[in-house]
Amino acid sequence: MRILLTNDDGVYAPGLRALRAELKKIGTVTVVAPAGEQSAVGHSITLLAPLLVQEVLDENNEPMGWAVEGRPADCVKLALLELLDEPPDVVISGLNAGSNAGINVLYSGTVAAAIEGAFFRKTSIAVSLEYTKPKPLDFARAAQLARNVIEQLLDHPIAEGALFNVNIPSLEKGPIRGIRVVPQNVAAYTETYDRRVDPRGRVYFWSGPDFRCPDPHPDTDVFALAEGYITVTPLQFNLTQAATLETMRAWKWH
Amino acid sequence: MRILLTNDDGVYAPGLRALRAELKKIGTVTVVAPAGEQSAVGHSITLLAPLLVQEVLDENNEPMGWAVEGRPADCVKLALLELLDEPPDVVISGLNAGSNAGINVLYSGTVAAAIEGAFFRKTSIAVSLEYTKPKPLDFARAAQLARNVIEQLLDHPIAEGALFNVNIPSLEKGPIRGIRVVPQNVAAYTETYDRRVDPRGRVYFWSGPDFRCPDPHPDTDVFALAEGYITVTPLQFNLTQAATLETMRAWKWH
Repeated sequence: MRILLTNDDGVYAPGLRALRAELKKIGTVTVVAPAGEQSAVGHSITLLAPLLVQEVLDENNEPMGWAVEGRPADCVKLALLELLDEPPDVVISGLNAGSNAGINVLYSGTVAAAIEGAFFRKTSIAVSLEYTKPKPLDFARAAQLARNVIEQLLDHPIAEGALFNVNIPSLEKGPIRGIRVVPQNVAAYTETYDRRVDPRGRVYFWSGPDFRCPDPHPDTDVFALAEGYITVTPLQFNLTQAATLETMRAWKWH
Repeated sequence: MRILLTNDDGVYAPGLRALRAELKKIGTVTVVAPAGEQSAVGHSITLLAPLLVQEVLDENNEPMGWAVEGRPADCVKLALLELLDEPPDVVISGLNAGSNAGINVLYSGTVAAAIEGAFFRKTSIAVSLEYTKPKPLDFARAAQLARNVIEQLLDHPIAEGALFNVNIPSLEKGPIRGIRVVPQNVAAYTETYDRRVDPRGRVYFWSGPDFRCPDPHPDTDVFALAEGYITVTPLQFNLTQAATLETMRAWKWH
């Protein structure tokens, strides 16, 4: 099995290194990942600037793949269109430092990279690790758990271009309680900004750290993850609101 | 009616100026938009850097709103949480220079700003103008067409947080053929990269200009827009693949 591995934390991030070590047990892994951290960049792509590309070695000085001075989605595009000699069987994005559940799925560069893989009709899986305290995180243990889920996903007959979002709960909350298949929570998060004035009198705002989802629906990724379950959510990228579409087609337009 | 107007082309972009002039006929418009161009940034948000904010005047030196050194989605968040004295009735994003149909909906900063408005349960509308040749575009005429569609949307009983994506066809293709309510096309685009070597021997890639959707489904935004129709697509931001979810819940997980 040929695996394309990417992320949004950067090519040398410990989460990617740990996941690569696990994925090498089940396939041939090529990394094409951003040169630096690209968190919360969503589905950004680079149309108006050059994408510098450099071959990179792993911690044992073995060839690992490429670092791209671009976004996670750029990495997947470039890998599939230019860099890889043979197309991968699966695109995996992670292991992200921080969960990507609820509406954060839309902000996430990790998930966007997997969506980009699905655009190309590749089976694509985003994998993230919740953290509840500052790092360091136990990526090695989390990557084992991630591999177990990935193997189970790939053991089933799945459609071409199937897309999955996997979250591993913080390992500091105690033993993993199991695996739950759950939809994305759609409630908004509680957010705050801190208003400040710079030394030249200009106003600026910092996004506050209290980015929380106060009351998630019980049958969702945010809820199950908080309860200590690994969550698996099948995703799609058709944003059409189908029910409303039918209603609106009956309107008289002028 | 109170209207929050944003975009991804920047606070001084001609498309925003033209749309603002039209929207002032139907409501009180406050602009909160990026200080500079932010195209194809998707649903990026700024968590790790300060968001500088500056009040801006319009072409007649009248107060217009705020410029934010951030992403389109940051602008909507900041407007709703910090900058506006009163909550808006509707969030409008545009008028974008370039269409946002098909999978481009996911790359688009214009649409992401509208999705962000919907996160806050505000009626939100993204509006884009296709171009088939280099600028300048007839934004004044396109903004009239956009206002007509926006007024019709708001005349109907729509759910809290309803979200719409509107595209105006290139006005150089001839008369507008009408308004079509259509789903998002989901096919991938044809893309190319141009491989080059910099003066220091480093490899880089430029995204090519032939970013096309070769064979869109007839009942989609991409197709109808190409045919010269204004397209209206109701959107949602739950990416869960519901049918697959039910199948996967029956799997034996271990």
